[in-house]
Amino acid sequence: MLFFTQCFGAVLDLIHLRFQHYKAKRVFSAAGQLVCVVNPTRNLKYVSTRCAVTQSTPESAGFHPHHHIHHHHRHHHQQRHHHHHRHHSLPHHLHHQEAVLHEAPLPLCICPLFSCQWEGQLEVVLSHLRQSHRIDILQGAEIVFLATDMNLPAPADWIIMHSCLGHHFLLVLRKQEKYKGNPQFFATMMLIGTPTQADCFTYRLELNRNQRRLKWEATPRSVLECVDSIITDGDCLVLNTSLAQLFSDNGSLAIGIAISASKVHTPEVEI
Amino acid sequence: MLFFTQCFGAVLDLIHLRFQHYKAKRVFSAAGQLVCVVNPTRNLKYVSTRCAVTQSTPESAGFHPHHHIHHHHRHHHQQRHHHHHRHHSLPHHLHHQEAVLHEAPLPLCICPLFSCQWEGQLEVVLSHLRQSHRIDILQGAEIVFLATDMNLPAPADWIIMHSCLGHHFLLVLRKQEKYKGNPQFFATMMLIGTPTQADCFTYRLELNRNQRRLKWEATPRSVLECVDSIITDGDCLVLNTSLAQLFSDNGSLAIGIAISASKVHTPEVEI
Repeated sequence: MLFFTQCFGAVLDLIHLRFQHYKAKRVFSAAGQLVCVVNPTRNLKYVSTRCAVTQSTPESAGFHPHHHIHHHHRHHHQQRHHHHHRHHSLPHHLHHQEAVLHEAPLPLCICPLFSCQWEGQLEVVLSHLRQSHRIDILQGAEIVFLATDMNLPAPADWIIMHSCLGHHFLLVLRKQEKYKGNPQFFATMMLIGTPTQADCFTYRLELNRNQRRLKWEATPRSVLECVDSIITDGDCLVLNTSLAQLFSDNGSLAIGIAISASKVHTPEVEI
Repeated sequence: MLFFTQCFGAVLDLIHLRFQHYKAKRVFSAAGQLVCVVNPTRNLKYVSTRCAVTQSTPESAGFHPHHHIHHHHRHHHQQRHHHHHRHHSLPHHLHHQEAVLHEAPLPLCICPLFSCQWEGQLEVVLSHLRQSHRIDILQGAEIVFLATDMNLPAPADWIIMHSCLGHHFLLVLRKQEKYKGNPQFFATMMLIGTPTQADCFTYRLELNRNQRRLKWEATPRSVLECVDSIITDGDCLVLNTSLAQLFSDNGSLAIGIAISASKVHTPEVEI
């Protein structure tokens, strides 16, 4: 763990260099670290010029074919919040179907992608992400997330899924304008599971470049929680544009990710 | 260093507890860590009601008797930038005095306190801070900065100076509204020295509470640079209000500070 931290700077330089050679590949290994190249969700305008390129690699990790139009976002965003709240007070089943007896209706979760309006049971989120958004699953508790095209206009999502410690985790990096004209980057880790299951883990995100290092450690959030509200609260790794610039190289931002089981709290220091 | 990181959470709990008992003292020790209680700069409105209290403890560390009026800030802020730039193009000596021969006029530095318009030579910054702002100097490379009254309205400054590794360092924590209605906290380390001297060091700021940990590592900035522009660029530790709330306890925010000499860059990973 200490080694990981100390060598991270050198590893990143190596990654950025190797990236030039391995651009065609989506996942590669550099200095023992698994690196995953993650493309942003394209919006409609961008796709129209890049369509030929992206369609030639339909298996690319992190490419989300669900196109969306820029101007609909704010409205959509509001809508999602309302939907989500409605479900908490009035379960989906009772609302849309005949009122049937149901022991304890499970909360629905909405797709963490900004551009997607899908919602469904926890059990099918994984297959939705894989089938509708073609998100690949990576193995391993420590990987490097290399987000490309950071200069794209907000909103944009970069997403990868990784499988470790018996669970699936989803890293969501979002570029969004919380304040008009000032896009920021928000990164958080979601567990495909309940909040209670999420409490058993800790994740760490690390940025390292230009004599600066930023580390964020927290408990993953359940995918049942709304990503939008996590980002609105800013309870995640937050980067302004100039800091993101300092940490990125040639428009690509490398984020070191590590997931571990939470240590049981041992009150070593007694008073 | 690793030990420091790992025990930091437990130490903070201990500090918050001890703080209840040691509120009268400005500097105390908890679990081997030197803790410094830092009060914010009061603005005029605040001072008018608290004057009796603050004047009873004139020796308090971090108390800055230079009062300022809230509404003058934006203007003052602009002015400071202009002053600073003017000095770079036209040295102070030549402007205000008769043109005398001077080998290489040293750049002037402005007081890093938001509320102070002082400017002078690098050699006298230290005595200005000590005499005009009564800032105490702490010894040691690792201390805990405990900023009180985080809920005070912006703008506010919390400042301490510490002496280690043969130099004086100044930690500046500022609450400021970059976006109207959204105050943020900005923390950065300044060296009382030149930018070249600053490059020889690394500082680390660490927050740890509520299952969240945020670490920022960077090279200190020279006090000759303008704190205002560092904060405007966001090239420092930035906290939004909700995150600051999560990291603070009872309105006090504990920041672990460590300063070390920079490691000489050894390109271990050869390509």
